[in-house]
Formats: sequence, structure tokens, C-alpha cells
Amino acid sequence: MPDLRKDPIVGRWVIVSTERANRPAAFVTHVPMDGADEFDPFLPGNERETPPEVLAYRPPDTEPDTPGWWIRVFENKFPALGSTGEPVRAGEGMYDMMSGVGRHEVVVESPDPSVQMPDMEEEQVREVIWAYRDRFVELKKDKRFRYVMIFKNYGHAAGASIWHPHSQIIALPIVPKSVQEEVEGARRHWEYKERCVYCDIARQELRDQSRIVMENDTYIAFCPWASRFPFETWIVPRAHEPYFSDITKNNVQDLAAILRDTLKKLKLTLDDPSYNMIIRTTPEEAGGERWSHWHIQILPALSRVAGFEWGSGFFINPVPPEDAANLLRQAELPRSPSMSRAVRIERRGTRRKTTDAP
Amino acid sequence: MPDLRKDPIVGRWVIVSTERANRPAAFVTHVPMDGADEFDPFLPGNERETPPEVLAYRPPDTEPDTPGWWIRVFENKFPALGSTGEPVRAGEGMYDMMSGVGRHEVVVESPDPSVQMPDMEEEQVREVIWAYRDRFVELKKDKRFRYVMIFKNYGHAAGASIWHPHSQIIALPIVPKSVQEEVEGARRHWEYKERCVYCDIARQELRDQSRIVMENDTYIAFCPWASRFPFETWIVPRAHEPYFSDITKNNVQDLAAILRDTLKKLKLTLDDPSYNMIIRTTPEEAGGERWSHWHIQILPALSRVAGFEWGSGFFINPVPPEDAANLLRQAELPRSPSMSRAVRIERRGTRRKTTDAP
Repeated sequence: MPDLRKDPIVGRWVIVSTERANRPAAFVTHVPMDGADEFDPFLPGNERETPPEVLAYRPPDTEPDTPGWWIRVFENKFPALGSTGEPVRAGEGMYDMMSGVGRHEVVVESPDPSVQMPDMEEEQVREVIWAYRDRFVELKKDKRFRYVMIFKNYGHAAGASIWHPHSQIIALPIVPKSVQEEVEGARRHWEYKERCVYCDIARQELRDQSRIVMENDTYIAFCPWASRFPFETWIVPRAHEPYFSDITKNNVQDLAAILRDTLKKLKLTLDDPSYNMIIRTTPEEAGGERWSHWHIQILPALSRVAGFEWGSGFFINPVPPEDAANLLRQAELPRSPSMSRAVRIERRGTRRKTTDAP
Repeated sequence: MPDLRKDPIVGRWVIVSTERANRPAAFVTHVPMDGADEFDPFLPGNERETPPEVLAYRPPDTEPDTPGWWIRVFENKFPALGSTGEPVRAGEGMYDMMSGVGRHEVVVESPDPSVQMPDMEEEQVREVIWAYRDRFVELKKDKRFRYVMIFKNYGHAAGASIWHPHSQIIALPIVPKSVQEEVEGARRHWEYKERCVYCDIARQELRDQSRIVMENDTYIAFCPWASRFPFETWIVPRAHEPYFSDITKNNVQDLAAILRDTLKKLKLTLDDPSYNMIIRTTPEEAGGERWSHWHIQILPALSRVAGFEWGSGFFINPVPPEDAANLLRQAELPRSPSMSRAVRIERRGTRRKTTDAP
């Protein structure tokens, strides 16, 4: 008999159906990416193929929009939202609309097109997190925007069209419904208990241990109780932290470690799955700093289950989160060699010369 | 500049981004199904491969679970929910759960594995609708169930694993969140306007015409204002009809016509896309018969856009519904030959003999 489990934040019921795991061909059909882009606009040397950089981490003696960078951020060449003008509201009969003012940026996570986040050195993942945070702080200053979301689509099945490691940032003139629902749910929990629901979840997961994937001093990674997707994994700060952008230097270090290693465990266990990763932070205007708590959601996109939730209008998860967490805990991480920044930049300089003309 | 458009029922903002349609490889990448199942458990002659039928339309001189039927319904061999016992509620610390009691059935829409709904005779589609309705009425009688949903996944990208034309029915001991949200939204509209929001939408769409795909005396098919997906299409009764199960015989005829022809237009325009189709009806307990209104949602699963909504936490639709509706209106339907039931049953009888041993 499967379980129906209720998400403690938004109140969504999910069917956690163990029987269905036995259905022939129901599970983990991995569609690998090709491993290389036909033409890679994010490669060092191709800076003119993208809009000008708005942020780059690069040696001081290099020019903007030239090689040398190890992180580079620019506006998406095909932005989902336009970045000029004011958000103008209008009606069309009973319908409401707003001009699509926002900002859609790309964070290139490495000059190396072939090393994805699970295989990066921890130091490089830290740099990615700093870039997220720097752009977040910058975009927050623009009063037209009410929410900034940072996300990553990896693999075709997760909607990615470019292989070169990258993330995306979208600043929006509205708060998305999915975020509003989480904040609302957290507020209801606060009103009832006067406790943060995410803090409660972290405490219960740590006590229970059955859904924990990894933990360190600052964060826990776990498969949530009412996981919508097989191997859905969240990374949540142990302490009450409403805003991602307030992350401290020490915490960036711990976050890079647990994020890289969690992704590595997913890669090892599921044969390099496509996935979406979202950083969910508290909208500043909601006054939600007491009840809302930033976190990361990693949602593997395992193909055969993809359409079911639209078709049925709700989620059926064929893998209990306890089983998923158990498999992920068992996945053994290889020891990675540690290299200093200087060595890495030097190596990149060399590699760059060979990749200038793709 | 793209639009942000607000769904008038649930209040969800969607980016309708015309610019993104130009993004290379962003759109309509059709992954065709193979066109045949390696082993087809739904074929006449293979009745013993499925659980026993709970409903079949078949000539009176044939036995249950033998060939002869033109519609056959049985429990899903790998049900998402168990059908015995009571829904028992329990807690686990702060978490809530319920035993997964429900009912998960398969409606085989035709004995012929190769003719999908857009290419069926209208008469056969009517029979499918009658089967939906008959099972709906039957499952509603079971007081353990609070919501019955009828849906269809067509194609791999939409989560289907079997090619033989079929739909699914799930009876649930809860009302799914997505349904609750729609009912809540419709109630808010009622409280503000004392009008049904779906009736208002139908009126505005008929006046405006720009998003209308097809219409007949009883139904309209249109691409909704805040479409989440390219070519999302809804079929809505013109008159206020809260419950799908109350459909009249004449209306079944009109529904079969508009459903088949809308699917045919999608097939012609998008090169046989994968899609999910959902029948959304009003939960009986909600007292929502004044403000809620049954309808069908057809959600094409065009692969490259699939992951984006999870990654970003909200919807970006690269095709304005006005453009989608315009293309669908232009798709010309071939005249289909009309056959009488007698002839069809005869043809099936013949075909059956050749498919008994697949």
C-alpha cells in the first residue's frame, strides 16, 4: 500500500508509491547530453558572442570581455524579460497583464566546458556561489524587481540547451506563485506554532536521520518527506537564515562543500541525471524573515515520470525519500585533488590558448 | 518586450515571451513514439495480461475479458494507489500521512493499437467519453474518495509508456492542490462578481475571438490568456456546467466532435506532439456548483521547454496564445469517412483474428 504524504510547508499531498518502482521501464531512463556543444558561446575567446559581462572574476590585468576569467556573468542573449522601462500594469477585459520588465542573466560557472559542478574543485563552486550572491545583491537594489531567483537547468530533460556549465538568474517584477505559496505556508506554521517550519523540518530530519543525505556544521542535505520527484534533495541551513544574500564567508565554504558533494552523489547514483536546481530565498517585502528560510531544491528530471504530474494534476513519486536518501548516503565520494588558485589560473591560461578558435 | 499575464482563475503570473521563440533550437522538438509497443497488453486477445475488466462496451454475445469489445476499462496493473481498506490518517513527528487508498484505472480507447484519438471516428470518441462518464459515476459512489480525475498522457515526453490508445482514471481520498486552487480562485471571483469565472472567460473569448481555436453549439476550444505551455488549449462548456458527470447525450456528441478535431489540429500543427489531457471537474463536497465549471485542459509537452518551469519556479511560454490559436485555426481538417457501428465491429472482428497472438 503506497503512502499519501502531505508537504508540511505548502500542504500538497503526494503519492509515494513503492509498488510503482517495479513497473517495467518506469524508472531512471537517463538521456545523456552529448558532452559538448556544437558551438560553445560561453568558451573563453567567444566573449563577443554574448552580451557584455556585468560581473567577472578575472585577474586584474585582463580586460572585460576577454579571456582570463574563471566566472563570467552577462545578460541572457535571449532574455525571458526585457530590462528597460517600468513594469506597466494594464487590463484587457477581465484579464490582467504587466509589461515584462525584469532581468535574465547567465552565470558561466567555469571557463572549462567539460567540468560540471559535481566534478569541480570546491574552490570553484565557492566562486560560483559568490557570483550568485554578488548579482543577487546588485539586482535587489533595483526597485522594479520584487523577486530574484537563481536556478540551474542541467541536461536536456531539465530544459538546458547548452552543455557548458552555467546557471541563470531572473529578477521579476512579481513574486512567483510557487514562492508565495511557500511563504504563505511558512506563515501559517508560524502563526500556529511560533516556530519556523524549515527549522522544525531540519530538527526532525536530524533527529530521524532516515532522509539525511549529508550534513556539515552549517547545512543539511536531505530528501524531503513529501518529495514530488524521485531523489528530490533539499539543502537547508541548520540555523534560521531567511535571506540567501546574507550568507557569510564561512558559510559559503560549507555550502560549496555540501552542494558539490550532494550533486556528486546524485551523479554517481543516477548515472549523471538531468536536474533543476533552485535557490529559494525569502521575498524581502513579505516581512517573512521570521517564518521563511532560504534553501536549495535539487529536482532530478528522470524522464519517464516527467509528464505524470501534468497529466494527473498532482505528484506520484515511485521512490520513497528514505530509499533515495539511503542510496545517496551509500554513494562513495572519491577523494578529489586540491589545487591552489594560482595553479588553476595557470592551467586555464594554457587551455585557453587551445580553445580560442573552437 | 514580453508580457507578464495573470491567470484569471488561480492568479499565477506567466511570462509570455515572443522574443524567445527565435532562440535557436528552443521550440518544438518532437520526439516521436515508435508507433508500436513491443508487447501490447491492451490488444484484443491479451485480456489476461491485464486485471479483469470493470467496464467494457462489447456485443452482448461475448464474454468478459475476451475479444469483441470496443472500449475496455480495468484496474491499472501497477496502480498508484491501493483499492482496499480505509484511508487511515497518521502523523510522524510534524509530518502528516494517509494510507494510499484510491483507485487507478485504465480506459483502453480502442481495440486498434494504431489509431489515436485525433484519427478516430467521432463515434469512437463518443464511446470513450461515455466510458469516462460511466466510471466517474461509479467511482463517485465510493465514499472513501473525494476526487476523481480523468487524464490522458500521450507520447513519451508526456509520461506515457504504452502506445496503444488509452486514458487513465484516478480516484483519490484527497482533493489535489491544483484542483483546490482552481476552486478557490473561482470562489474568489464569485464572491467579488457573483459570476462564474469560467463563464466570464468563455464570454470574453467568444467576443474577442483571437484565442478561439474552434467552437460549436455547446463548447469552445481556446488557448487561454495566461497559457503556461505553448499551444495549451482548453475546452470549456459555453453554459455553466459544474460537473462533468452530468453531461447530456447531445453534449457528448458535441464534445466528441470538438475534442477530436482540436487534437487533430494540434497533431497537424505540431507534428504529432506528446500531450497531457486532463478533465477538471468540480469536487462535489466543495459546494462549488455555483462558481466552478468543468473543463478539459490539453497541455502539449514540447520537449525543450519542459524543465524550465521547475528550474525557474514559474512558467515562461515562448508562444503567445493568440499566435498558437491562429495556427490551430488555420490547420485544415481532412474530411473523415463515416462508418456505421456495424461495419466497424465487423472490421474489428477480422482484425482481431490476426492479432490474437502478437
